[in-house]
Order: sequence, then structure tokens, then C-alpha cells
Amino acid sequence: MLPIVPELKAKAREQGLWNLFLPDETHGAGLTNVEYAPLAEAMGHSVLAPEVFNCSAPDTGNMEVLHRYGSPAQQRQWLDPLLRGEIRSAFCMTEPEVASSDATNMAATAVVDGDKVVLNGRKWFSSGIGHPNCRVAIFMGLTDPSAHRYAQHSMVLVPTDSPGVTVERMLPVFGRLDEPFGHGEVTFTDVTLPLDNVIAGPGRGFEIAQGRLGPGRIHHCMRLIGLAEKALELACRRSVDRVAFGKPLANLGGNRERIAHARIAIDQARLLVLNTAWKLDTVGLEGARSEVSQIKALVPSMALDVIDMAIQLHGGAGMTDDVPLAAAYAGARALRLADGPDEVHLGLVARLELQKYGLKR
Amino acid sequence: MLPIVPELKAKAREQGLWNLFLPDETHGAGLTNVEYAPLAEAMGHSVLAPEVFNCSAPDTGNMEVLHRYGSPAQQRQWLDPLLRGEIRSAFCMTEPEVASSDATNMAATAVVDGDKVVLNGRKWFSSGIGHPNCRVAIFMGLTDPSAHRYAQHSMVLVPTDSPGVTVERMLPVFGRLDEPFGHGEVTFTDVTLPLDNVIAGPGRGFEIAQGRLGPGRIHHCMRLIGLAEKALELACRRSVDRVAFGKPLANLGGNRERIAHARIAIDQARLLVLNTAWKLDTVGLEGARSEVSQIKALVPSMALDVIDMAIQLHGGAGMTDDVPLAAAYAGARALRLADGPDEVHLGLVARLELQKYGLKR
Amino acid sequence: MLPIVPELKAKAREQGLWNLFLPDETHGAGLTNVEYAPLAEAMGHSVLAPEVFNCSAPDTGNMEVLHRYGSPAQQRQWLDPLLRGEIRSAFCMTEPEVASSDATNMAATAVVDGDKVVLNGRKWFSSGIGHPNCRVAIFMGLTDPSAHRYAQHSMVLVPTDSPGVTVERMLPVFGRLDEPFGHGEVTFTDVTLPLDNVIAGPGRGFEIAQGRLGPGRIHHCMRLIGLAEKALELACRRSVDRVAFGKPLANLGGNRERIAHARIAIDQARLLVLNTAWKLDTVGLEGARSEVSQIKALVPSMALDVIDMAIQLHGGAGMTDDVPLAAAYAGARALRLADGPDEVHLGLVARLELQKYGLKR
Amino acid sequence: MLPIVPELKAKAREQGLWNLFLPDETHGAGLTNVEYAPLAEAMGHSVLAPEVFNCSAPDTGNMEVLHRYGSPAQQRQWLDPLLRGEIRSAFCMTEPEVASSDATNMAATAVVDGDKVVLNGRKWFSSGIGHPNCRVAIFMGLTDPSAHRYAQHSMVLVPTDSPGVTVERMLPVFGRLDEPFGHGEVTFTDVTLPLDNVIAGPGRGFEIAQGRLGPGRIHHCMRLIGLAEKALELACRRSVDRVAFGKPLANLGGNRERIAHARIAIDQARLLVLNTAWKLDTVGLEGARSEVSQIKALVPSMALDVIDMAIQLHGGAGMTDDVPLAAAYAGARALRLADGPDEVHLGLVARLELQKYGLKR
Repeated sequence: MLPIVPELKAKAREQGLWNLFLPDETHGAGLTNVEYAPLAEAMGHSVLAPEVFNCSAPDTGNMEVLHRYGSPAQQRQWLDPLLRGEIRSAFCMTEPEVASSDATNMAATAVVDGDKVVLNGRKWFSSGIGHPNCRVAIFMGLTDPSAHRYAQHSMVLVPTDSPGVTVERMLPVFGRLDEPFGHGEVTFTDVTLPLDNVIAGPGRGFEIAQGRLGPGRIHHCMRLIGLAEKALELACRRSVDRVAFGKPLANLGGNRERIAHARIAIDQARLLVLNTAWKLDTVGLEGARSEVSQIKALVPSMALDVIDMAIQLHGGAGMTDDVPLAAAYAGARALRLADGPDEVHLGLVARLELQKYGLKR
Repeated sequence: MLPIVPELKAKAREQGLWNLFLPDETHGAGLTNVEYAPLAEAMGHSVLAPEVFNCSAPDTGNMEVLHRYGSPAQQRQWLDPLLRGEIRSAFCMTEPEVASSDATNMAATAVVDGDKVVLNGRKWFSSGIGHPNCRVAIFMGLTDPSAHRYAQHSMVLVPTDSPGVTVERMLPVFGRLDEPFGHGEVTFTDVTLPLDNVIAGPGRGFEIAQGRLGPGRIHHCMRLIGLAEKALELACRRSVDRVAFGKPLANLGGNRERIAHARIAIDQARLLVLNTAWKLDTVGLEGARSEVSQIKALVPSMALDVIDMAIQLHGGAGMTDDVPLAAAYAGARALRLADGPDEVHLGLVARLELQKYGLKR
Repeated sequence: MLPIVPELKAKAREQGLWNLFLPDETHGAGLTNVEYAPLAEAMGHSVLAPEVFNCSAPDTGNMEVLHRYGSPAQQRQWLDPLLRGEIRSAFCMTEPEVASSDATNMAATAVVDGDKVVLNGRKWFSSGIGHPNCRVAIFMGLTDPSAHRYAQHSMVLVPTDSPGVTVERMLPVFGRLDEPFGHGEVTFTDVTLPLDNVIAGPGRGFEIAQGRLGPGRIHHCMRLIGLAEKALELACRRSVDRVAFGKPLANLGGNRERIAHARIAIDQARLLVLNTAWKLDTVGLEGARSEVSQIKALVPSMALDVIDMAIQLHGGAGMTDDVPLAAAYAGARALRLADGPDEVHLGLVARLELQKYGLKR
Repeated sequence: MLPIVPELKAKAREQGLWNLFLPDETHGAGLTNVEYAPLAEAMGHSVLAPEVFNCSAPDTGNMEVLHRYGSPAQQRQWLDPLLRGEIRSAFCMTEPEVASSDATNMAATAVVDGDKVVLNGRKWFSSGIGHPNCRVAIFMGLTDPSAHRYAQHSMVLVPTDSPGVTVERMLPVFGRLDEPFGHGEVTFTDVTLPLDNVIAGPGRGFEIAQGRLGPGRIHHCMRLIGLAEKALELACRRSVDRVAFGKPLANLGGNRERIAHARIAIDQARLLVLNTAWKLDTVGLEGARSEVSQIKALVPSMALDVIDMAIQLHGGAGMTDDVPLAAAYAGARALRLADGPDEVHLGLVARLELQKYGLKR
């Protein structure tokens, strides 16, 4: 962690620019999704910003879960230090051996045994697990295969130093390990915890996961829009400043058209996300399901196109870390897969559309 | 003209659904661009609708010009019957021999001679000239080559039965003549008119043309969004109803992804146009130049993609006139060229973007 | 028909440039697919050329069918005058009410009744039916629903003046009727013909249809490549000759990149078709199934992109019939649907690819 | 370096699978470009292969330069050990401060001073400089600014241990350092060498660089085709083996269409490269300039599309190094910039096309 991060965190907290994501006035900023969206976009311009303002994934989602579903004891133990930015957290859902796009595939188990819950399984892309301040993970596993399809799984709070929890390795994403912050592969072997660590009681994992999704996607997408704006800015500066064949790059070939297309693509996407935020605020997730999937399927691809265009304008430098574009590319690319691949979201958008005309499923 | 059109016009007028485009409460509906936009979208679902509600191009633009710049006498003679839907009008700007994307190329002349103005030149894509009720055209020509670049041209009201005005032919657009409504090629040979026919006085043609553009582009784009919605609806219905290889088309190959992409593309584009309308309403054309060009460069292409997808889902029928898709395609394709080709608008968007970073032009 | 066509036909025949498509030395030119391919490309530059050299669809396919499967009597009656270019023919397979992409859907019937065959059904996109010299149609219908899936249908020679044959209407394709040459909708009502009119005997329709496909697709694709070359030539000429904003269009925006992309796309596509022709010549249709579907799914889209680019460079003129681009667009667009839509061919290509790795179907 | 590499090298050399790229029978395999192309494709399946067969860039280009332009002494000192695979080499052309797409921008100098040549400048993306066996670099610099535009530069052989040569850092490419093999940033400070180290004499740098380009682009492109084939194979295997929502991925959404498009894109691209190789072999670089630029502008993008599709099908795993796709992506992405960015090559293709119709430049 860069030494400047704790300094900036202190400053941000002091100025009240803290927990801006949490739509609760007591613990957070009490902003609606529409109100928070432009702040998330602004944070997207820098990789440091989300942590500085205590608005990093997966903490934001985890804090929301604890805020909405946690018991007072769970809140005291984990939510409060998270809200203060003293600790960080991980989220352990995706598994290497099964297609996680279909969450009912999940193979890890969270078996209730008297007043204990016993966890077993292998998770990966466990975001946040590599952070030096990570103290707790939310683990999702199968509790009762005989229950209704959406009532089989539980979410369990796991202190990361529990016996049986092993970070097997950190996963490189497009060649970047992002140590110590990156995604990990984690095994859970007979991890035995008090039953009280189950959030909201056994079998409610899916229900909780659902509620976590809408706002999280707004956050990701708005940060990507900020990232795309940053890439477009770099592309424009380069186009103006760099000369080849006696002209600024802006005056060569199709470069202006690419810049115009990027401008249009970003502005369209931002409006779509803001509209989705407004629907979430006004009619809730159930009424905004198509929109939430639309932005998830659109915005990462849009951002990748803009970033790639900016890389190309930077020549070799664009591929190095002298400019933040290659890292931005890797980050945005991961978001075409995280939280369900594009294709799953497109499938949902299409199904909702076709159901208007009588298609059954 | 279908006999149903005058019937529907009478009904629309009776119900006050009339001149909805005109942001003036006395002569029109007094709606802002934002308020009119959804009505324009609704009209886009049917080719008849614009005329039925007296909101057809090029009459809308011509009425706005007369409303804002016309003398009382000009308004009495031409604006009033246009507002009543009794006559229709044409707009004669584009020329076959020069690149009209660069309007300063214009070769036709409008020479002041004492209290007369004499018009000469060849125009084409003169929209509206083929309508049986067309009585007046607005002609744009060069008056004073020695004046400032943007003060050289004049707009002149030309009764279509003036001596020297000849409709040489109607122009097919993607094979459709759209007689008697289509675009014409018109010659003006020593057409001599009273100087009073010049709108707002000689040399103000460019200034008037500019003011005409913003709202007109909102109208075109919103109608295209309605057209794209109609195409998506047809695509969905076909996907649900038509069976091949034992399955509805919706369950074959990439069809659902195409429908989802269309849904996303339409929704994004609509938001971009509405945002542009809002900027026009609040900060005016000067502050919305990038946005107005953005929608002009985006929306026709977007609509074409959706319509083409719908055609493909309809198989052979999609190419015929049994479904309105092939005609919709031709109409939308023309709008990638009308009012300046995409490329000119992209160029403007890029220039405004690059100027933020110091590019001179 | 333009009067020049019979003149040119006579000239072509005199010079031995006649029936170049037929891989038989006695009746045709005896060329392989690889040898004929560049000639088909050359013919693609002009809409008149295929007829001039007696190489028009659907006659080419029909002549091949008669040559390979026709009885001596059938050949004498129909093949010989077709080879001499005295008559023309139609092909009646596609039906309006069923998805013809799945040919087993076919609803029309060809029922054997003693020494007669009785035809009933409605066909459309019956190519060639509108030609004034059309004398015979090949009709495909269901003969024996209890037979094996691919042995149920028959192909029958139908004199176009047979009682019960009615051309209900000619079908517009993207607004073009192409009278009298276009595609028709044809009903067959109790059309009773001698059993001898069945080609190769009842139940062999699918087998014959299959053999017809490979070379036909080479022909279509090579003509489209010629058409795309013509469009690129027009685009280049326009780019060089037309001036806007003080520069030839070639020096504006992304126009050069578009021209380069077109050059690359055409050259790639040509090589793919030539390679397919070579495979057809050397290993036959069974060994070239993927390739034949690849070109069918690729080449029309490629040609459309090039033509559309050329239209855009021509401005308004590109949409009219002053240049042959809008007509070219309509023709190429139809070929994304004719002979099976792109999606069916992509499905076949994918299946053959996936079967290499164990996928069952 | 993996220990297996020297073992495999010995084996390859023993079997005569060595220096396959060199079109000279004495020192290499004596293959034409067309003959070598499929071998380069085969090598593209593995990152180790090029070195194993002594066919790695930049050694291949450097060996060709020495073979064609080197003096007997230069050949003895550097070419022979390179041909034996005992040493490796680097190529130092690109500079960080100027747009290297326009090579006349080059700022580094190679000044002749009596019987010495003195080098100064900063180079980056100096490929091969990080290899532990790298012993010599070819440096390009400005010798005589008063000479003809293409006779100002010289190529100089620089032992990597010469005083004044400093590898400042290795450059990450999309987050991968590829140490010790990667690209370096190298400063040359008053590096003083015998004049005999200049290849073919001062002022011939451009001439030599030109000759180096054609075959090198064939090699790169064919290896990329091999890489794309590997990616497609992985995509297919994953599609067949991985199950989600109860079906193999191959049966979900648009996956089959994506696989078909990849198959078509690879096959087209391969044919284009083979055709270019044939033109190089038969008419030389001058006659194949458009083709060489066509493949350079096409093939990396094509490969990226296929690799990205394969990554998406692999879900999270696709971004890690558990499958070779993310690394393949980084490698292919670099080739959209190396040896001139796509845009420069598209510009050349367009210019040659437009010159057919009279455009001057």
C-alpha cells in the first residue's frame, strides 16, 4: 500500500468524504444511487480514490450486506471497523471448478452442525483477500440441497485467520498480480465457526446476494465511466501534443473519428447508468432488472474500446506502465466477467424483452 | 396520398394534437424540446403520423423559420396555411454538383436587382417538392460573394408555380420514388421575385439555417428512435412466433444477444437525444453543438443496425413491403446523409473535444 | 429487357463466351470451379453480364440439375433451349409460411397419382419467374412423408403455362420490383403433370438440391466480389475527384482507412472463395461443407460493408440510381438470406468445428 | 530461460529443423516465404517454439541483415554464432521521444569521426536486449542530416558490453515484464566503435531496414495465425467441456456464431498472408508493398478478436496464466504497434489504392 493512502484516508474522513456509497444517513452519506453515481465516476479517474474515500469493492457490498442483514453483534464486530476504514474485507463466492455464471452450480458447503457451521470448498477470484488489512471474508456455500433452489445457500462471516482458511495463491489478471490487493484462490477446509456467523440465518444467501447486486453494478459502471473519461483525456492530449509526419496525431487518418465515437459512447453509457440508478432509487431492483443487466453488459466493453483506442494513440508507451492505460485495460476487462459474464446479462435483457411478446422463458 | 390522411388530420386537429413541434403557445403547442421529444418518438412508429399531426419535415423547419424570421406579410401568406395544414412546403438547399456537407460550396445564386431578387441554380434532394399540396419552397443561394463567409447567402420564399421553377425529376432513394412525396431535383432559371420574398433580408441565410438545425435534428432522431422501437417489436414478435428447426427463432443462435444489444442501443440513444433536447432548451444551440452533432452521427446508424437485424429475422419477407422494415431502412439510411453526413458531425464532435486540450482547429 | 442484351448475347455466343459455368466440355466451357471463379467475378461488375454470357441464376443451377439428373427427354425439351439461351427458367423452393432455412419444413406437395404427379402449394422468392422468356420452373414439394427425412421430396419440371400455375405478384426487394426479372410469389393449384416431369424420380429432391448448392454459392460469392470491387473503384474515384472543405474527400477524416479496410476485406474474401472452389474441385462438396458455408456467411456481408461505404462517400447521389450502388446494396442484401440465412451457415461452420473436439451435434 | 529450451534446441538442430527462416541453402533451410510460412504458423502455437528452432525475432531479421549486407568479418563475428544459436541479439530502432511510425523522426545519432563511429541516443522497445545470451545489438541512428531523406541513417553493430551502453530498465507490456527476454529501454552515451561496425557503410540504414521488413511481417503474421488457431482450439474445447445452466457452453447464446466467425477470420487471414508470401517470393517487396501492409494491419487485430473471445469463454480462468490466453493477448496487442502501428499501414494501403485513380499522394 502506498504510504499516501492512509494520509489521504485521514484527510477524506476529516472532510466528511467518507462512506459516500452507503444510503444510510447515520453510518454513511445517505445518498441515493443517483446522487452517489457522479461521485463514483469521479473516483474512477484514479485507482487510489475508492480506498481513500472508503468506497472500495468488495467492502462496499459487504458493508451494505452487514448494514441490512447483519445482527447487532455482527455489525459491532465487523461493520463498525469497516465503516471506520480500519479493516478491509473479502468476498468469496466464485469457484474454479464450476461455471459461476450459473450460481446454482456452487459446490462449496456451509453445513450446520448444532450451534456450529462448517465450511468446505475452494473459491477463487476472492477479491480483497490480498489486502494487508483484510480481516474478514463473506463466504457463500450450500447448506441445504433439499430446500427451494434459491433457499439452499448461506452467507457466512469468516475471520481470515480462522483455522482451515488458506490463501493458496494470488491470481494474476492479464499479467498483473496486484499484490497485495488482488484476487486470491482460497481453500476452506473444515472451517468451523459459531452458527451466529451466518448472516441472517441459514438459507438466505441468494436473497442477500440479490440485494447486493444492483447498487454494486452502478458503482462499477460509474467508476468505469470515470476511467473511460480519463482514457479519452489522455488520448486527446496525446493527439494534440504528439507529432508524426509533420502533423499532430489529431490530424492524421481516422483519429478524430475515433475520438468522436469515444465521446459519444461515454456520454450514452453514462446516461444509461444514471437512468438505471434512478430506476433503482424509484422502483427498486425488481423493476430495474433489465437496466441493471444492460449496464453490466455494456459499460465494460465500452470502456475497453475507449482505453484500447487511447493505447493505440500512445504507441509503445501505451502498453507500458508509464501511462495508466494498460492497467486500466486489465481492470476493465475483468469486469466483463466479474459478477456474471456479459453473455448472461444479455440473456436476461433479451428474455425480459421477449416476454413482453409472450415468450415463456 | 392515402385518403385516410386528411381524415386523420381533421381528427388530430380537432383534438388539439396539432403543430406539436412549435415551441410557441399561440400558433403551436408551446412545448419545449424535451416535452416534444417523446411525441416525436411516438410519431416515428408510423410513416403517416408526422403528416397527420402537422409535424412533417421539411414543413416543421420551414414553419419555425417563418415564425422566427418571417415578416408579418410572409407569415400571413405562408405560415398561416402551413399551420392550418392546408398547404405543404419544400426546402431547396443541397446541390448535385458540389459537396453540400460544406455549405460554403453552394453554387446557386440569389442576386438582388433593385426591388427584385433573381434566382438561378440546380438543387436536389429538395424534400417535400413532390407533395401534391406543396405551394412554396425555401431556396438558399449566394447573394454577395464579397461579404463575410457566413453573410453571403440568402433564403428566399419561392411559390412553386413561379416561372422558371422546374421539377426535373423525382429522385429514387434506395429504389423508392415515394411519389408524390419524395425528394426532387429542381432547376431555378431566372426566377424573378419581389425582394420582399427574401427572409429577414439578404445575407442572413446562414444565420437562419443554423437556428433551424438543432430542433430539426432532435425531431429526426426521436422519430428514428420510434422507428427502431417498432423494428425491435417486430423482431421480437417474429422471434417468438416463427419456428425453425423445432424451436422459436428466439431460441436459435445469437438471436437473443442481438435483441439485447438492440434494446441497449435504443435506450442509450434515446437518453442521449433527450439530454441534447434538454441542453437545447436550457443553454441553446451554441452550448449544445457537440450534442446536436453527436445524435446526428449516432442515431441513424443505430436505427439501421436494429432495422437490419429485424429484417434478417424476417427472412425474405423482411426485404419485401409486407413488413415495413425495408422502407424503414431506406428512410433511416437517407438520414446518415441528410443535414450533413455522419463524418462531418463526427469531425465537429472531435474538434470540440480536442479544443479542450489546446488544439487550434 | 434492354435491347442491348440480345445483341450482346449473340456476340458472346459467337465468341464462345457462353455457358462458361458448366463443367462439361460438350455443352459448356468445361471449366473447373477454380477456373470459372475469376470469370464470375468479372461478370459481377455489371448486372447485365450474367445474362449476356448465359450464366444467370437460377438458370445455371437449373441447367446443372438437368445436365446431371435429367432424362434424355427432359434434356432435349428444356436443357437444350436453356443452353442456347432461347428460354429462361425459374426455381420454386422457398415458401412464405414456413422457415425455409429448415428445408424439412416445406409444405408444398408433389403427390404421385399413377402416371401423374399433382402439385399444390405456395412458393415465393421464385427467382426468374418474371423474365419474359421464362418457360419452365423447377418445383420442389413433399411426396412421401413416411420416407426418410431426406427422401421425402421431389423436384418437378413445370412448364410455366401449365393450368393451375399462377404468379400472384412480383415481390419488391428493398423497394425494387426489378420487373420483369424479379422474384415472384407463385401458387400451384392441382397442377397435374406427367410423372416423367419428376427429375430423377420421386423422393430425390434433397439429393439433387444438395449437389446444386456448392457451385452456385461459388458463383454468387464471386459475382459479389466483382460487385464489391466495382463499389471500391467508385469509392476511390469519388474520393479523388470530389472536393469538400478545400480537399479531395480522400484527405478527409477516416476515408482512407475505410478504403484500406475495404481493399483488405475484398482480397481476403476472394482468396477464401477461391480456396473453397479448389476444395470443391478436389475433394467435392462433402469435404468442403464448412468452406461453402463460410463463404456464404461471409461474402454478402463483406460486399454490403464496401457498398455502404461507397454510398456514404457519394452523398445523396449514392442513394439514387445515378450510380449503381443502391441497387447493388439491395442485391447483395438479398444474398444474406437467399440459399439459407447467414445464421444457418454460421451454425454449420461452428458445428463442424466443435465436432473436432467431441461435440455430438 | 526454461532448462528445457537448450535441450530442445539441441534436438531441433540435430534434426535439421534449424534456421528454417533463412532463404539460403548454405546457412539456412533455403525455403521460400511460401514454404516457410506454414512452419512459422506451427511455431506460433507455443511461445517456446521460435527459440527452439532458432527462428526468434529479432534474431531472424538481424541474421538476414548480416547475411545480405554484412562484411565477411561481421558475418564471422556475429552471424555465425547467431546461426549456431550460441548467442542472441537485439534491435534498437524505436525511440521514446519521437513518433517512430515516421522513421525520419529518429533523434539518435551515429556520427562518423575518422575511423570511428560514435553513437548517442535513447532507444526503447529494444527487443531481445533482456535475453541472457544477448551479445550484440543493431543500432540505427542519424549520420548525415544533409543527405537525401533516405540516406541519412546508418545501422551499426554494437557489442552489448560496449562502454556507454546502459539498459535503463525493462519495459512491461500489458503488465508483463517477460524478464529476462522482454523489451528494454537502452541509452547509448558516446559509444565509440570502429567504423567497420557500420553495416554496409554509413547512410544505408533505411535501405537495409526496408529489406528487413517484408519477410519479418510474414513471420509475425503466420505466428499470430498459429496463436489464433491455438486460441480457437481452447475456445472449442472449453465450449464442449464446460457446462452452465445444464448445457455445454457451445449450446448457449451466441457462442457458436462466435466460433464460426473466428474460423472464417483465421482462414481468410491465413490465405491473405500466404498470398503475400507468394508475391514477395515472385515479385519482391516493391510489388508486394500493399499486401505486406495489409497483413500487418489485419492479422494482429484478427488474432486479438479470437483470443479475446476465447478468454471470455474461459471466464475468470481466461484472465489468469492457468491458460495461455492472457499472455497471448498481450503479445498480439504489441504487434498492432510494433513495426509501425496499424494506422500507418492502412494509410499505405489506401494511398496505393487511390493512386490507381490519380491521387498524387
